[in-house]
Amino acid sequence: MVCREEVEAAARRISGYVRETPIIRLRGEELGLHGWLVLKLEQLQHTGSFKVRGAFNAILSQPIPAAGVIAASGGNHGAGVAYAARRLNVPAEIFVPESSPAVKVARLRGYGATVRQIGANFAEAQAACRERAAETGALNIHAYDQAEVLAGQGTLARELEAQAPELDTVLVAVGGGGLIGGIASWYDGRTRIVGVEPEAASTLWSAVQAGQPVDVEVGGIAADALGARRAGQLGFAVAQRHVDDVVLVPDEAILRAQQALWDELRLIAEPGGATALAALLAGAYTPRPDERVGVIICGGNTEPGKLA
Amino acid sequence: MVCREEVEAAARRISGYVRETPIIRLRGEELGLHGWLVLKLEQLQHTGSFKVRGAFNAILSQPIPAAGVIAASGGNHGAGVAYAARRLNVPAEIFVPESSPAVKVARLRGYGATVRQIGANFAEAQAACRERAAETGALNIHAYDQAEVLAGQGTLARELEAQAPELDTVLVAVGGGGLIGGIASWYDGRTRIVGVEPEAASTLWSAVQAGQPVDVEVGGIAADALGARRAGQLGFAVAQRHVDDVVLVPDEAILRAQQALWDELRLIAEPGGATALAALLAGAYTPRPDERVGVIICGGNTEPGKLA
Repeated sequence: MVCREEVEAAARRISGYVRETPIIRLRGEELGLHGWLVLKLEQLQHTGSFKVRGAFNAILSQPIPAAGVIAASGGNHGAGVAYAARRLNVPAEIFVPESSPAVKVARLRGYGATVRQIGANFAEAQAACRERAAETGALNIHAYDQAEVLAGQGTLARELEAQAPELDTVLVAVGGGGLIGGIASWYDGRTRIVGVEPEAASTLWSAVQAGQPVDVEVGGIAADALGARRAGQLGFAVAQRHVDDVVLVPDEAILRAQQALWDELRLIAEPGGATALAALLAGAYTPRPDERVGVIICGGNTEPGKLA
Repeated sequence: MVCREEVEAAARRISGYVRETPIIRLRGEELGLHGWLVLKLEQLQHTGSFKVRGAFNAILSQPIPAAGVIAASGGNHGAGVAYAARRLNVPAEIFVPESSPAVKVARLRGYGATVRQIGANFAEAQAACRERAAETGALNIHAYDQAEVLAGQGTLARELEAQAPELDTVLVAVGGGGLIGGIASWYDGRTRIVGVEPEAASTLWSAVQAGQPVDVEVGGIAADALGARRAGQLGFAVAQRHVDDVVLVPDEAILRAQQALWDELRLIAEPGGATALAALLAGAYTPRPDERVGVIICGGNTEPGKLA
């Protein structure tokens, strides 16, 4: 578990390295909803997602071996680790499967990381990453199941609470549980937390049903960001105490949320970044008329040309 | 001229109809610059530009004839007038040239306006608009040369000053002078105001050189938003008193600014919306090392697919 004090400490550590991302208040009516909404625009963060918060905190809160840091991820986590490592002058090695698109590999190299393309799939890249970490002694930064990572992601909630103290409920997309674990740890029961997952990647929902993290099949349009096969132990433990509900949305609603963000706000979100908003548009979560709802837009790493 | 009290009155009138758009603070280093920057994200406004501020204020500050409001513009001004009219239950007629792209016409119709496609170019559409206004008695809302419009645009500066009171200088793109006129009226000499124009549409720059508004040839990639042929009398008068400098940027720098906004912040700006930032990237305006600079990102109406 992560406590509020750990999130406070993380916020002090990473201050100056991460952006305070803005919020915008909207009449729900503008999106065919009731009441008022607050969107937290975390896709404006460095590297286009919240992941740098956890990465900076992980690197800044422990001694870093000469071999630096290491991670397995071709997506937002890899970018966050690579970016934080470069800013802190720490070497970073990132493992991705051989099938990773050239554009993602180029992006990681652009952040100064050494990229290793190994294995036919993500599990094989991850195994190679662990093996390499054992060899070199590099610090392996997990995408979600580490206390320092949760505490770093929790700084998003601390920032949001200062910007919008009135919120009754916060909707947050869930992959492996790092972001929702950090957010729920910060709010600590003072605000309702609702997790949102694609129907095609119901990792935390399945863990809640089973009473423990279980392996699930993952797919769908948000799989690159929310496609963890198994919820983290830490995120799951926090969720059991402090997450009020986990709801599922179809891919079609995620696409609709991406389109609404562009049409109404000229904002670009990746599928995983629009998933929390999709819960409102699809009616998977229906607030009371007077409920003040915050929605985390957690990533923007997509091809903007996909929108009309 | 417009005074601060008129901007205050406009802010009270349009409150509840326009969004308070967010700012984001950036280390200049992230864009290859010095010091700190504040970006005002006005492209998140209704209809994707600041134009609704002036449109709401114009409609709300005078009696509206039964024939409603009328305007000539296929661009952001037309959208702003159409949107404000619909929200206020006022009929709107928008004149655009026959050559207007179907997508722009559809957008205006989407905001509930009656669209008239008349004339071979914008000047002919404008003439038809004036003629029609004389016939029907509809209130003609000018794109920039009306006191109510300036006062409405000035509310952007009032909002920005509350969000970032520390600014020494504000950079703002100039078309006909409505936005900069409103902004300079609000700051009233307390903050440096610098106008930025594309080299290919140097409307206010040419007026300053000539000592009065003069007709200029306009073109280039931002012409749809910043391509006024002649500066407004009101904007020019304010500029003479309260605008410290007008600088010019090449189209190439505007494209670079659009790309930087996407690469570093996952934000989409139209060419005119990125023009103020281009002045910093191109070195057309070089702040002192400790100067606190605000940059207005004033519109986002572009095809997002144009960015890589």
